[in-house]
Amino acid sequence: MKLVTFDTDSGTSIGALRENGDVVDFATDPALPRTMAEFVAGGRPALDRAARLLASAAPIPAGEVTLRAPIRPRNNVMCVGKNYLDHAKEFAGSGFDASQRQTVPDAPVVFSKALSSIVGPGEDVTVSADATGTSDYEGELAVVIGEGGSRIPAAEAWRHVYGYTIVNDLTVRELQKRHVQFFIGKSAATYCPMGPCLVTKDEIPDVTALWVRTSVNGEPRQAAPLADLIFPIPTLIEAISAAVTLEPGDVIATGTPSGVGIGFDPPRLLAPGDLIEVSIDGIGTLTNRAV
Amino acid sequence: MKLVTFDTDSGTSIGALRENGDVVDFATDPALPRTMAEFVAGGRPALDRAARLLASAAPIPAGEVTLRAPIRPRNNVMCVGKNYLDHAKEFAGSGFDASQRQTVPDAPVVFSKALSSIVGPGEDVTVSADATGTSDYEGELAVVIGEGGSRIPAAEAWRHVYGYTIVNDLTVRELQKRHVQFFIGKSAATYCPMGPCLVTKDEIPDVTALWVRTSVNGEPRQAAPLADLIFPIPTLIEAISAAVTLEPGDVIATGTPSGVGIGFDPPRLLAPGDLIEVSIDGIGTLTNRAV
Repeated sequence: MKLVTFDTDSGTSIGALRENGDVVDFATDPALPRTMAEFVAGGRPALDRAARLLASAAPIPAGEVTLRAPIRPRNNVMCVGKNYLDHAKEFAGSGFDASQRQTVPDAPVVFSKALSSIVGPGEDVTVSADATGTSDYEGELAVVIGEGGSRIPAAEAWRHVYGYTIVNDLTVRELQKRHVQFFIGKSAATYCPMGPCLVTKDEIPDVTALWVRTSVNGEPRQAAPLADLIFPIPTLIEAISAAVTLEPGDVIATGTPSGVGIGFDPPRLLAPGDLIEVSIDGIGTLTNRAV
Repeated sequence: MKLVTFDTDSGTSIGALRENGDVVDFATDPALPRTMAEFVAGGRPALDRAARLLASAAPIPAGEVTLRAPIRPRNNVMCVGKNYLDHAKEFAGSGFDASQRQTVPDAPVVFSKALSSIVGPGEDVTVSADATGTSDYEGELAVVIGEGGSRIPAAEAWRHVYGYTIVNDLTVRELQKRHVQFFIGKSAATYCPMGPCLVTKDEIPDVTALWVRTSVNGEPRQAAPLADLIFPIPTLIEAISAAVTLEPGDVIATGTPSGVGIGFDPPRLLAPGDLIEVSIDGIGTLTNRAV
């Protein structure tokens, strides 16, 4: 199922996309939760109920809805740094990693983005508010956690994966460097575009076969298969949950491939007007304009 | 006003402490919000309404309530690393700062703790779940944001401060080092004790005159005045909000003084059975036992 959060004239709701882009509004079943975080926490029973609704309800035409970020987690958006070899090298070479101990990390480098940085597909990214002029894109596949837990072994990790979405882990490079810990540079308002939908795990039989592709103004910049992750998804879930209690709806962005703006010489950073598209087969394209 | 979140036999509620420890339950006024995050977002009008209730309502005796963490932010718990000179030196000397560029930072080093790590006063901290055996305490004053915003100049920062609480920024030192970015090492379940109450700003005329004191099993370990902060509260709010949109109820733990466990030679890390107390005049004492 392709789950979405969307606006209509009558407010914000959650629902599911049909193949043609029409949306079935879960609010037509009063027993279904009102927010995606609650829906995900509802697990299999909520999905089964939604599937029955999807088979019978009259959809809203695609043109009458505006998609938003599919989920605002109740807990955290976590991100993984330096999780593709070529990107780890380009980041080391850029001089922007003030926390660098080694080019390729021994263990996943995990930080978080402020929840207030989340925006949806089609929303503007306000790079003009970045006084340092060092805003950069990072296209990523993100995992959405279903059943929560802690100390989850890698062998059991897939059981905790609810589905997938796309995150553009936008970064103010100068702030990422200046503050050493990445949180501020990763958390500017509008710097966490997410979407266009949350695809449930069952729709993607082999996530390692997917490719993440990012373009700026139509020009390809990033392209890599998920098979290239240094720390694959089960390893990430094991490493994070070794300490952190994961909650339903938690988002883990799995890292970005090479081809970010600071990977070029000279750097190709974002400017107002740039159109950034991150595409993953089976999920869709997350499009945002820098303003 | 000393605001609290508390449990009784009939569930979780929010309210205010009287001088004698009795609690006035805000649920007795149906117009008041049910969670502290919503109450803080309600600003002055909610406080005024609560003050009227406090003057008239029958309180619940102290012995019948269990205090919880005063607030679970909707957005973030942010923390500041290396914000006292002597602590910056002891941390550099410990070898546990894998992200170290310089002992005393040029700009605030800000990271976040998972919201799922929050516990209340009196709750256990499960150091026995830390397989590395490197759990450490960090007593801190935390600021709670009232009115949200971004790009807040230091000169206007106090207007955005709603009040104060105490955070014990517990840390698994080995994970803090292994993952370079601090998030995982700072976010273990139960590693963010908070409380015992949220004191509104008006009750503390000069926050820089307060002292943070931490003891373990009654033995003093940390003691420093807030006046010693390298980056004072208005500077922190300016630096964070330069990028991040702050939301009502956001928590900013302002950093810890020298005297953490790894500051000793040999290190004095936490073991099951240890009783950790963090005290700040005017707020109270946050007590948690390591188990």
